[in-house]
Amino acid sequence: MRSDPDLHLLLVGPTEVADGLIAALDPEQRARVTVRPVRTAVGMADHPTAARAESTVRSAVNAVRDGIADALVSAGSTGATVTAAALGLGRWTGVRRPALVATLPAVAGPVVLVDVGGSLDAGTAALARHAVLGAAYAAVAHAVAAPRVGLLSVGTETGKGDRLRRAADPVLAATPLPCGARYVGLVEGYDVSVGTRADVVVTDGFTGNVLLKAIEGAYAMAGGPPASGGAPRAAALLGVAGTVVVCHGAARPDDVASGIALAAHLWRRDAAHTVSTLLDGVPHDPAPDTETTPR
Amino acid sequence: MRSDPDLHLLLVGPTEVADGLIAALDPEQRARVTVRPVRTAVGMADHPTAARAESTVRSAVNAVRDGIADALVSAGSTGATVTAAALGLGRWTGVRRPALVATLPAVAGPVVLVDVGGSLDAGTAALARHAVLGAAYAAVAHAVAAPRVGLLSVGTETGKGDRLRRAADPVLAATPLPCGARYVGLVEGYDVSVGTRADVVVTDGFTGNVLLKAIEGAYAMAGGPPASGGAPRAAALLGVAGTVVVCHGAARPDDVASGIALAAHLWRRDAAHTVSTLLDGVPHDPAPDTETTPR
Repeated sequence: MRSDPDLHLLLVGPTEVADGLIAALDPEQRARVTVRPVRTAVGMADHPTAARAESTVRSAVNAVRDGIADALVSAGSTGATVTAAALGLGRWTGVRRPALVATLPAVAGPVVLVDVGGSLDAGTAALARHAVLGAAYAAVAHAVAAPRVGLLSVGTETGKGDRLRRAADPVLAATPLPCGARYVGLVEGYDVSVGTRADVVVTDGFTGNVLLKAIEGAYAMAGGPPASGGAPRAAALLGVAGTVVVCHGAARPDDVASGIALAAHLWRRDAAHTVSTLLDGVPHDPAPDTETTPR
Repeated sequence: MRSDPDLHLLLVGPTEVADGLIAALDPEQRARVTVRPVRTAVGMADHPTAARAESTVRSAVNAVRDGIADALVSAGSTGATVTAAALGLGRWTGVRRPALVATLPAVAGPVVLVDVGGSLDAGTAALARHAVLGAAYAAVAHAVAAPRVGLLSVGTETGKGDRLRRAADPVLAATPLPCGARYVGLVEGYDVSVGTRADVVVTDGFTGNVLLKAIEGAYAMAGGPPASGGAPRAAALLGVAGTVVVCHGAARPDDVASGIALAAHLWRRDAAHTVSTLLDGVPHDPAPDTETTPR
């Protein structure tokens, strides 16, 4: 509220929690806060489908759907937020599972890591879609010109990797990418944190999620993040018709603030709509992943 | 050679490379070096099965098999080393794929990460085997009493994870572990680098490999590793009948030295044989992974 004078907040949750937050603001700031009282929340241990019922995350999604809010920020269960957003806002054409996109500050600029928890069981088609999404996001959200897109694996030589990566490498090489992006082949874990080989690193949501948290832990061990910034604590949800940001489940106040700032940045750039339009401009994969896709 | 007066080196490779190395030693040290000239090496881009033919790694494995060397250290292709060691030394009973085990220094002591590249396409049976291996290795190599074993996933609550992790969680909970080890459930990427929840973190070789390199990159970004030590640049190969250590493919001289020191440490503790014997004491999985195992 202090750093962004144009920001309006809609707080969705128990009134007493909102009251504590509002009490910390000065009168001018309070005028920019509205409360939507909702008592039921989806817990971290609940199944994501719990988000189908009336809950804070469902109510917040509805506020975006109804035009009452421009963007949604959640530090709750990632699965519940993805489910509620996909149900309430709808998915982009050709996107089966929305992706979570995180941006890491690296030596030569930002590295966009996709996915960090949206598609835990990705197949080759999902990885190809992540490549397209990541390229568009790097260009739109971070103004990266002609993004270099790499596929995360255990070595850079062709043929290195598990079955999924070996199958996906030629598929990504043949996938048309937007924004002048080009596929640079296999990259390694090192390239996510240091980032000299690629601007966009493509992986499945399981690997991306554990990777991001391991990097965060390494910075904690090293006595703090580098001056350029540490591991991001908020990620953009791409693939739903709206601006949605998911914060780390153990988010501290400044993490939530960085998530809100990211949501405002993306909304002001019209990023969700622009990325979606860029995706419509590249051919869709005719054979989406099924349970039998090699992975 | 300087830090370990009892160490003898058998250098396997081109004579001129060995000559350059020997020239840097003093006469006493030279007396502890033997050269086995071999010209053909398996390249990083070659298929691991190239290790079947006569090559540096095959010749080094044969030296261990024939009792000419006590341990093998390689900074070449991991796949070729694993293949050559499995063929030349034989595998332990019940182990289909040898595992690569790396030890990270963390807040409360070492964290053993298994696997970091041996089984890129692990199933539930391989993960259960990694849990047993990791527990025995933590006890034998690092003197960890009653190791806590965790399964790497995207959250700590039961049910979090991709299909493989959701299937493996109850399997690990039901797996008898040696050395008084106990299964503590799901852990996150943070627990690999910071390490307060588990002494042993179990994962597939793909995830472990990219994770290890991302942590290494994060320390490079943060200006250097913590005082307790950075990401390891050498890993023990467990599951073959002999002491084998694999160094990082981009190993620097001190990385190779740390790999040699690890090999000497493991050989002196009779770690490979002791861990293998501990494994024989726990029931074998009656249904090893097949291509159709959920992963």
